[in-house]
Amino acid sequence: MWKCVHPISYRYGTVEIRSVFKKDTWLECMKKVELELLKALVKNNIINEDLNWVSLENSFKDVSVDDVERWEKITKHETMAVVSALSEKAGSYGKYIHVGATSNDILDTVLGLQLNSAHKIIIGKLKKLINILVEKSIATHDIPILGRTHGRAAIPVTYGFKFGLFIDELSRLYDILGDTIKLVGIGKLGGAVGTQVELYPSGDDVEEGMLSSLGLKEASYYTQVIPRDRLALYLLNLITLSSVLDQLANEIRNLQRSEIEEVFEPFSKSQVGSSIMPHKKNPINSEKVCGIAKILRGYAVGILENIVLEHERDLTNSSFERCIIPEIFVLLDEQLKTMIYVIEGLVINKERALENLRLQEPYIYSDLVLQKASIKGADRQVAHERLKNILLSEKHLSKEGFIQKVMRDKYLSSFLSSDDIKDAMNIEKYIKAADKRLFTLLDMLKDRGFEISL
Amino acid sequence: MWKCVHPISYRYGTVEIRSVFKKDTWLECMKKVELELLKALVKNNIINEDLNWVSLENSFKDVSVDDVERWEKITKHETMAVVSALSEKAGSYGKYIHVGATSNDILDTVLGLQLNSAHKIIIGKLKKLINILVEKSIATHDIPILGRTHGRAAIPVTYGFKFGLFIDELSRLYDILGDTIKLVGIGKLGGAVGTQVELYPSGDDVEEGMLSSLGLKEASYYTQVIPRDRLALYLLNLITLSSVLDQLANEIRNLQRSEIEEVFEPFSKSQVGSSIMPHKKNPINSEKVCGIAKILRGYAVGILENIVLEHERDLTNSSFERCIIPEIFVLLDEQLKTMIYVIEGLVINKERALENLRLQEPYIYSDLVLQKASIKGADRQVAHERLKNILLSEKHLSKEGFIQKVMRDKYLSSFLSSDDIKDAMNIEKYIKAADKRLFTLLDMLKDRGFEISL
Amino acid sequence: MWKCVHPISYRYGTVEIRSVFKKDTWLECMKKVELELLKALVKNNIINEDLNWVSLENSFKDVSVDDVERWEKITKHETMAVVSALSEKAGSYGKYIHVGATSNDILDTVLGLQLNSAHKIIIGKLKKLINILVEKSIATHDIPILGRTHGRAAIPVTYGFKFGLFIDELSRLYDILGDTIKLVGIGKLGGAVGTQVELYPSGDDVEEGMLSSLGLKEASYYTQVIPRDRLALYLLNLITLSSVLDQLANEIRNLQRSEIEEVFEPFSKSQVGSSIMPHKKNPINSEKVCGIAKILRGYAVGILENIVLEHERDLTNSSFERCIIPEIFVLLDEQLKTMIYVIEGLVINKERALENLRLQEPYIYSDLVLQKASIKGADRQVAHERLKNILLSEKHLSKEGFIQKVMRDKYLSSFLSSDDIKDAMNIEKYIKAADKRLFTLLDMLKDRGFEISL
Amino acid sequence: MWKCVHPISYRYGTVEIRSVFKKDTWLECMKKVELELLKALVKNNIINEDLNWVSLENSFKDVSVDDVERWEKITKHETMAVVSALSEKAGSYGKYIHVGATSNDILDTVLGLQLNSAHKIIIGKLKKLINILVEKSIATHDIPILGRTHGRAAIPVTYGFKFGLFIDELSRLYDILGDTIKLVGIGKLGGAVGTQVELYPSGDDVEEGMLSSLGLKEASYYTQVIPRDRLALYLLNLITLSSVLDQLANEIRNLQRSEIEEVFEPFSKSQVGSSIMPHKKNPINSEKVCGIAKILRGYAVGILENIVLEHERDLTNSSFERCIIPEIFVLLDEQLKTMIYVIEGLVINKERALENLRLQEPYIYSDLVLQKASIKGADRQVAHERLKNILLSEKHLSKEGFIQKVMRDKYLSSFLSSDDIKDAMNIEKYIKAADKRLFTLLDMLKDRGFEISL
Repeated sequence: MWKCVHPISYRYGTVEIRSVFKKDTWLECMKKVELELLKALVKNNIINEDLNWVSLENSFKDVSVDDVERWEKITKHETMAVVSALSEKAGSYGKYIHVGATSNDILDTVLGLQLNSAHKIIIGKLKKLINILVEKSIATHDIPILGRTHGRAAIPVTYGFKFGLFIDELSRLYDILGDTIKLVGIGKLGGAVGTQVELYPSGDDVEEGMLSSLGLKEASYYTQVIPRDRLALYLLNLITLSSVLDQLANEIRNLQRSEIEEVFEPFSKSQVGSSIMPHKKNPINSEKVCGIAKILRGYAVGILENIVLEHERDLTNSSFERCIIPEIFVLLDEQLKTMIYVIEGLVINKERALENLRLQEPYIYSDLVLQKASIKGADRQVAHERLKNILLSEKHLSKEGFIQKVMRDKYLSSFLSSDDIKDAMNIEKYIKAADKRLFTLLDMLKDRGFEISL
Repeated sequence: MWKCVHPISYRYGTVEIRSVFKKDTWLECMKKVELELLKALVKNNIINEDLNWVSLENSFKDVSVDDVERWEKITKHETMAVVSALSEKAGSYGKYIHVGATSNDILDTVLGLQLNSAHKIIIGKLKKLINILVEKSIATHDIPILGRTHGRAAIPVTYGFKFGLFIDELSRLYDILGDTIKLVGIGKLGGAVGTQVELYPSGDDVEEGMLSSLGLKEASYYTQVIPRDRLALYLLNLITLSSVLDQLANEIRNLQRSEIEEVFEPFSKSQVGSSIMPHKKNPINSEKVCGIAKILRGYAVGILENIVLEHERDLTNSSFERCIIPEIFVLLDEQLKTMIYVIEGLVINKERALENLRLQEPYIYSDLVLQKASIKGADRQVAHERLKNILLSEKHLSKEGFIQKVMRDKYLSSFLSSDDIKDAMNIEKYIKAADKRLFTLLDMLKDRGFEISL
Repeated sequence: MWKCVHPISYRYGTVEIRSVFKKDTWLECMKKVELELLKALVKNNIINEDLNWVSLENSFKDVSVDDVERWEKITKHETMAVVSALSEKAGSYGKYIHVGATSNDILDTVLGLQLNSAHKIIIGKLKKLINILVEKSIATHDIPILGRTHGRAAIPVTYGFKFGLFIDELSRLYDILGDTIKLVGIGKLGGAVGTQVELYPSGDDVEEGMLSSLGLKEASYYTQVIPRDRLALYLLNLITLSSVLDQLANEIRNLQRSEIEEVFEPFSKSQVGSSIMPHKKNPINSEKVCGIAKILRGYAVGILENIVLEHERDLTNSSFERCIIPEIFVLLDEQLKTMIYVIEGLVINKERALENLRLQEPYIYSDLVLQKASIKGADRQVAHERLKNILLSEKHLSKEGFIQKVMRDKYLSSFLSSDDIKDAMNIEKYIKAADKRLFTLLDMLKDRGFEISL
Repeated sequence: MWKCVHPISYRYGTVEIRSVFKKDTWLECMKKVELELLKALVKNNIINEDLNWVSLENSFKDVSVDDVERWEKITKHETMAVVSALSEKAGSYGKYIHVGATSNDILDTVLGLQLNSAHKIIIGKLKKLINILVEKSIATHDIPILGRTHGRAAIPVTYGFKFGLFIDELSRLYDILGDTIKLVGIGKLGGAVGTQVELYPSGDDVEEGMLSSLGLKEASYYTQVIPRDRLALYLLNLITLSSVLDQLANEIRNLQRSEIEEVFEPFSKSQVGSSIMPHKKNPINSEKVCGIAKILRGYAVGILENIVLEHERDLTNSSFERCIIPEIFVLLDEQLKTMIYVIEGLVINKERALENLRLQEPYIYSDLVLQKASIKGADRQVAHERLKNILLSEKHLSKEGFIQKVMRDKYLSSFLSSDDIKDAMNIEKYIKAADKRLFTLLDMLKDRGFEISL
């Protein structure tokens, strides 16, 4: 394992997702597609012999990646190497293998199978993460926490409201990924350049036969390759998901700052934060998730460049896809796995959250004071300026001090009483308002078919 | 005009698309949103005064971008500058402007309006381009042209089949863009950080009132900003479209090479190709389209980075979006406009296409010869190797010479007669096969609601 | 101005940098190059007529961008439009204009002039920013501030040490940009495809004559265009600078968080932070700088794609460079201008910095306690674990409580006395160590020729 | 091997480059650095014991990656896992390991060692490629080939001139990489956040001692990490190199088009071009090189994002660098290896090149005809237009036909004789001019220290 050069081979992702992209898995898919092609050829009387399928399948089982490797050295052509290796073992049936197909018929169909497998793993983890976020949001729906804009104290919200943002985004991506996998979890049998001339006029039927056994739909059109805008549309959605996980992880990191500490990532007893500073307790899981997002974002551009293949295809998408498709899935799997771990074990530091709010009083109520003044007849713009001057006049105004200053302001006090201000400085209204937004969202999710028990 | 620094201000795009993104258009949108907010506040009794809407609208008309600019120098806050400028002119109504709203409620809603406007322009041009491609594909459905893979002669296809690829891709993007505009052509009224606490519990009603008048749906959830994954999903689709146009333009460029010349871009009589080589006739329109695609591809990454805003928002999406949203739309408009011009006026050089095919005979029929051998009982893999050796044995094999060589091969000639080979070397079958694919596609398009008269 | 679509035309950058990239400035450069070409042709006896240079220059002055625009509509060729417009006005001399040159000889040489001009503006601002940072670092060299890793309290450093990081990075980029501008601030005269065949064998001499008058060196090799790896190398350095400014601005943003507040951006009295929350004081300047960096980063990919021009050139770099070269310079100018403003006016909140340090005691001294234990003979790994357990056992250990716990630990107390620990918890040593690093750096800068008065 | 998920672990790159980045190589480097740290600590009397270095080194040899893996599961901290594994085996010396260092002192220093090793491999291959290109350019310096711009016939150049372009670019990158490796082939010993407080005031001495034994220079400044602008500057240069190889490979691909065929990649006898079209001979090596360049270009953005670490470091560069540093080097190695193979075995198809030139006559001489007219007194702009009209009047003008048409043009024939035109249509001058440029370049290379025997 340590002979592997790339960390996705040993460090990142689960065994499950890695297995989708190992070369031996790929070979098994190749065999399956060549077999289904053959069956469809026989069924459509292109090949007129009654094959013993059990014996053929058994002969395929004997073919290893090393056999393919040996043939690839001779042919310098990967699919032809597979075909040769299969034919070698298949005895008299070997002559039929790959009839009517071009390499990329097999390769693009195998890719469709792999994408479907990998997609299921990703979407399963995504669903789990959404569920955990929903649970957390309900469990913390009335725990206040400071809302911040520009890194600065804004007004109170709730933990639940904060989780709501990611529920909204992730559930949107869940639905969209469910749509766009259909663009790529497909196959084709088009021959040399996609006209099916070699099987004319039965191409459609053979294709349909081959693909339906594999559980795949047919691409609507293609040349030698399925057009790469499809892959772009799907993979860009995955990368968007990766960046939403980045946003979530970044939020955890910021809330775990020493000066904020409103949440903590799980931290095990034997865990070490720093080799030189024994006191450190760092949000390394979330940091990893953010780091990975940078890798995936960069791929967006190459994925788009790949659309621009020449004529009926050139090969420049090949090396790119060999590398980045496994990488995107394995690394996204790592991100999802990690965020599930982090959110599931997230420590909610309610006391510190309340303390942090208290430290920002009365400033964090300035919007409701302004609103109250407006409702009561003050000129919104004048009130804004006067409140601003009062609030920025001192570094640490007390609630009482704030009320006094407003009362001493002739303009403001002609609209606002000290009770009005006290009333505005009530955190309960902020919690209720945040709550309303969250539960409206959760209701919508239920309507969209997510299982949520409120 | 020449004082503008950026070419999208004077060189690229149409007047129509540019006008969506001029600062004065933006200001008109700002006014409209602030007005509808006010109406909704009155309707929901947040403001209890019967306003004279005509007089208010008139006062808004007096506010210019220069007024805003003046206020922005004072407040260093763009929306507050607009609010101040409007209040200044609105007399006694000025006090009500912007009540209950945060700047980004207005800004994100204005963005929704602008995206809808710009989208209509783009989607209209996209539809036109698809229509022209459909017409061209039908007009050339039976004109053969060389299919190429890896830049090398493959087998014959038709012009129509080639156009089909872009019809498939562009119609897919047409449908997808129609879906994803719904993610962003929306608005919001959420107050300081999106909880609507300032209007609690009427926030939803005021929001709905304000947005429905503007023809916008409400975002399902938000903080101070609408979450940027939505914008990413939409803009990445636009960029994907840009790269498909790159692919189309690149195809034209390659087909117009001096050594190929199967098509020509329109070239006007007074047009100059080179200032030093009077004979030049360059595909500059298509080259421009390819160049622009590189700009848009790069934005993909920043668009994804923008998802990662901190807490209830930070400002780092602002300068980015100010620059790149106009750029993406204006440059995409330029690409679409250009490709409409190029495809509409495209010269189909049928004679040269036939000549180019002839020059690649008999090689371009090798797939059907192989297929025929397979059907007739030859071992596909053996036949492949023997045909390969024959075909690569000479640089310019004649059709006759090829037949002779195959006939002299004991293995091959035990399956193939010289009539079989002649039969395989018939371009008509290639045309028919290509045709079948094209018309299957066009039928599907009809089913999906595209107007196509076959 | 409000008719401009792109914010770099009116909102970002200084008048100075924008003027480099306006179309009329470009036209003036075109004239200059065509004029110097003509002079060099005469000097080298390619043209054998004694021209009246004053009258020619005067005739050039009459040519406006509108003239060029008119000709471009006819020729659809920008340089030929300039040549035609100049010839039109130049009377009998018109016949000589552009002799021996291809368009891109003029265009690439003009680009060299523009890059030199823009570079000077950028490098001047960069130098100013470095100087301000040096001043700030010296002024704050002994003011302690919390060092943080992973967003968590680490150990004490100084403000000066923090500034040192950016001095190191920016001075490195200053030197490197000074080197790489030489790669692009150049010109060429190569004719149709760069062989100078049209002026053979005098091409070199005419080129040298033309360029030396313009203050430019000759490119070492070229086709119709100067190879774009040069531009990539230079522009990628500019983009690297942009990301270092992002890092600096991001640091300011984090230090200005409500919970940290160790620095403040300048904030003017009439400035507004939020239209709904009068209390807000946001680091909007730094946020803008971070936002712009995302735009520039995205261009890196297209700049690299541009290297891959076909044969002796294709046109796909043209539209890209028209847009992104002005953008990069104007936006980088905006970033530099903004950071100069921010750092010059930066408020150092020494009291809060000390308070923040105090709140993290005794944790922030854990490295020196560990180090002392190691020096005194403890097993470093055992001591690390025991200290970790003590430090993480309570949320808010006091200094005294920490000493007691260590003393109660049999292993640790066999190496450490309570005086040892007190000694380790002395911030002065941290300040001295940080100071040493900073002044070592400043000394190196002096050696490299930066003017620094220590 | 087939268990590896990523193709850089088995498919791409040489054994040599892969071995630099295997986890066991990394562990050997870690041991080496920890050992040299210890030696420097003893030498500087931080540790006052006389160690038996042989026995210590032997104990280190026993530590395997599996040991580290075991410890990492406990500590969740990679370096601490290494330290623990080493201490475990080192007996009584274990207590000294890692004294005074933070993890990233070791990690960044190890990275410096790995970068130096990998750089040597890359630069060696780059040198070889340049040498081969120089040889090829000299061998083909007088073989004419069509120069092309915009994909269209321009004027004649030579093969040698074409190679010259890549010699110019690659030799520039060779020099630049030689400079920028110095920015990153370095190490550091800075302690917790880079102030060296733990070793104060001997930090500099220990650092210098440790690094000089490792053959590394010290970074000029750092926090917990060496600032990532350095890595950006170096890696962006590598990526630029990758895109120049893309350009070279793309040129080969275009010249090998069926309609051009001026060069051929090596193609072995048993090689297969297509599994369905036996006649295919595709430039798959060059296509692979182009495909890989898309991967590397995408990394540019993340590399730039990595500069923006927070405070004295955050961890988000870590996962990114783990993945992309091996990838960049292994894939670049694959590109270089492949281009060496392609250029070394490149078939120069001189006959076809001549034929292609002949087919474009007389058009490809239009620049010299225009130049001649200008020299002889014609108005350049008028002559250009008249020649353009003649040349574009017919699709296939013969040389003779062209002369006749010019002679029939009253304006042109008043300056040009038919001998003038014949004289201009002489390919020898084009060859000489191209030659002059090439040999001027090669002379410059010699002056810059490249070994070239002309």
